[in-house]
Amino acid sequence: MKAITVKQPGGAEQLQLEEVDKPTPKDGELLIKVKAAAVNRTDIVNRESSSGYLDNPILGVEVAGIVEEAGTDAKTPIGTHVMGLVNGGGYAEYAVMPDDRAMVIPENLSFEEAAAIPEVFLTAYQTLFWIGQLRTDENVLIHAGGSGVGTAAIQLAKQIGQANVITTAGSKQKLDFCRSLGADVCINYKEQNFDEEVLRATNNQGVDLILDFIGASYWDKNLASIKVDGRWVLIGVLGGTQIEKFNLMDVISKRIQMTGTLLTPRSDEYKTALTSEFSSKTMELFRHHKLRPIVDQVFTLEQIQQAHEHMESNKNIGKIILKVN
Amino acid sequence: MKAITVKQPGGAEQLQLEEVDKPTPKDGELLIKVKAAAVNRTDIVNRESSSGYLDNPILGVEVAGIVEEAGTDAKTPIGTHVMGLVNGGGYAEYAVMPDDRAMVIPENLSFEEAAAIPEVFLTAYQTLFWIGQLRTDENVLIHAGGSGVGTAAIQLAKQIGQANVITTAGSKQKLDFCRSLGADVCINYKEQNFDEEVLRATNNQGVDLILDFIGASYWDKNLASIKVDGRWVLIGVLGGTQIEKFNLMDVISKRIQMTGTLLTPRSDEYKTALTSEFSSKTMELFRHHKLRPIVDQVFTLEQIQQAHEHMESNKNIGKIILKVN
Repeated sequence: MKAITVKQPGGAEQLQLEEVDKPTPKDGELLIKVKAAAVNRTDIVNRESSSGYLDNPILGVEVAGIVEEAGTDAKTPIGTHVMGLVNGGGYAEYAVMPDDRAMVIPENLSFEEAAAIPEVFLTAYQTLFWIGQLRTDENVLIHAGGSGVGTAAIQLAKQIGQANVITTAGSKQKLDFCRSLGADVCINYKEQNFDEEVLRATNNQGVDLILDFIGASYWDKNLASIKVDGRWVLIGVLGGTQIEKFNLMDVISKRIQMTGTLLTPRSDEYKTALTSEFSSKTMELFRHHKLRPIVDQVFTLEQIQQAHEHMESNKNIGKIILKVN
Repeated sequence: MKAITVKQPGGAEQLQLEEVDKPTPKDGELLIKVKAAAVNRTDIVNRESSSGYLDNPILGVEVAGIVEEAGTDAKTPIGTHVMGLVNGGGYAEYAVMPDDRAMVIPENLSFEEAAAIPEVFLTAYQTLFWIGQLRTDENVLIHAGGSGVGTAAIQLAKQIGQANVITTAGSKQKLDFCRSLGADVCINYKEQNFDEEVLRATNNQGVDLILDFIGASYWDKNLASIKVDGRWVLIGVLGGTQIEKFNLMDVISKRIQMTGTLLTPRSDEYKTALTSEFSSKTMELFRHHKLRPIVDQVFTLEQIQQAHEHMESNKNIGKIILKVN
């Protein structure tokens, strides 16, 4: 089968389309004929570094497709249209997926749309509700509102959290899109000091929760934007990793809870439990178009280098999809 | 009545014994004839800085004594022996306390012992269980094991948490005492690298929870000592506040939850709820000597400067008490 691997750790030019053996499902696993996969930042980290989180030499952590074969104890019927997280191996014509992580695709969604759901919606769900403990009527600040996780988080925070959503992005086009997804306050971080706008929008109280994909470059403004007893979830470092001066009293006097998280390196049990709760809370909303996967652009497997470069240029709104079969 | 106030922000020499008016209990408050009060680090912060957390010009956040008068709606009978947190005003012959924060003193404890309970045991309870979510058989690292909060936390983590307790202190005398309170692993931070000892004691996994009173000087070793998905509660900065290089990936890749907290500035509602849960879980244990308040030394109100200097020299094991009436 065709699959994307990495020649050696480096840029997008290191990605190659190879002919490799079809994987075999083990106990409790499904073999999926992949119709669509999606590109994630974790794939870029894996491409750049040989010390990635996954052993599979084939990139890709999520797919949508058709169950072609089921290992012992796997219960999903052959032929079911499913989407879900895989432990690597998503950029390929076939992939294996733990059976208890497969979500049946709602009938109203295409495979490309379905492939845009697992990683970003599960990450957004995990960070907003499991880690961030978002409650009704709270204020949440979602950075990178136009990103894959950003567009998912805005929708989940509104539709499930019934929260007040404040988001940042770097262009009018992205902000208009965020507004169309339900964001209440949209801040252009290139033109405005987002902390001032956050305080203005929250009666000088600050937000209860920050989803932070940015890290270092937003540090001081995030500190100024968070409420006393606020929660701050660190899920990305697009703006750098190194804080030059960190005063612990900032965290103590505001009684901030700061939690770092990543989804890909977590255990199978964790991903299964998250998938299960997420499915039960969201599938009806996807069926009724209250939640929608956001597809930015669709590439073929052969166009994988362009797909990665597109993500690295930060121009996408929503997900970058690979159409496979 | 006699009370301790601060001439101007500064050292222990600024503390003075004054004659001031007796306070009057408002609705829902008790007037307590103070038999004993206790010294806390928050009092030193209030002494040093005019921007303290409390408005009361009289220092002191906890007392033990006898109910002398009850405001409207206060239900504790006159004459009851009580202990609890006050919103300032503890270093005095009389203090007012919200009625719903008064805990009846177990019969087997003296007033001096009772005054050694509220602040440190409530702080330890809050940080171990409310914030730290300590669970049975987990490993917890309690720094400053000989301190007031340290001695309380060791006991609560063993008696209520059924956890494995690892503690650090700077002398054999303190460590022997920690062991007598139930600590499983006792590390002399002056003679050993505590992170190496923690990893040795936890099969290289690290601890599930750190109670950190130290801050900057222990930063790197705490990072090395914490388990993946560990919780880290920041409650003091005895070792400095400024981290020179903070790499966010340290927090993200270990998925650490770091929470800053202070008890004194929290709301009345919070303190009431904490007091109520704490009482229901611990009073029987105090009655049966399974938990014990640790009194280091007793001073008179007139000796207040020596009492503060004693705390600032870090020589105490457990609480420094003021005998008042």
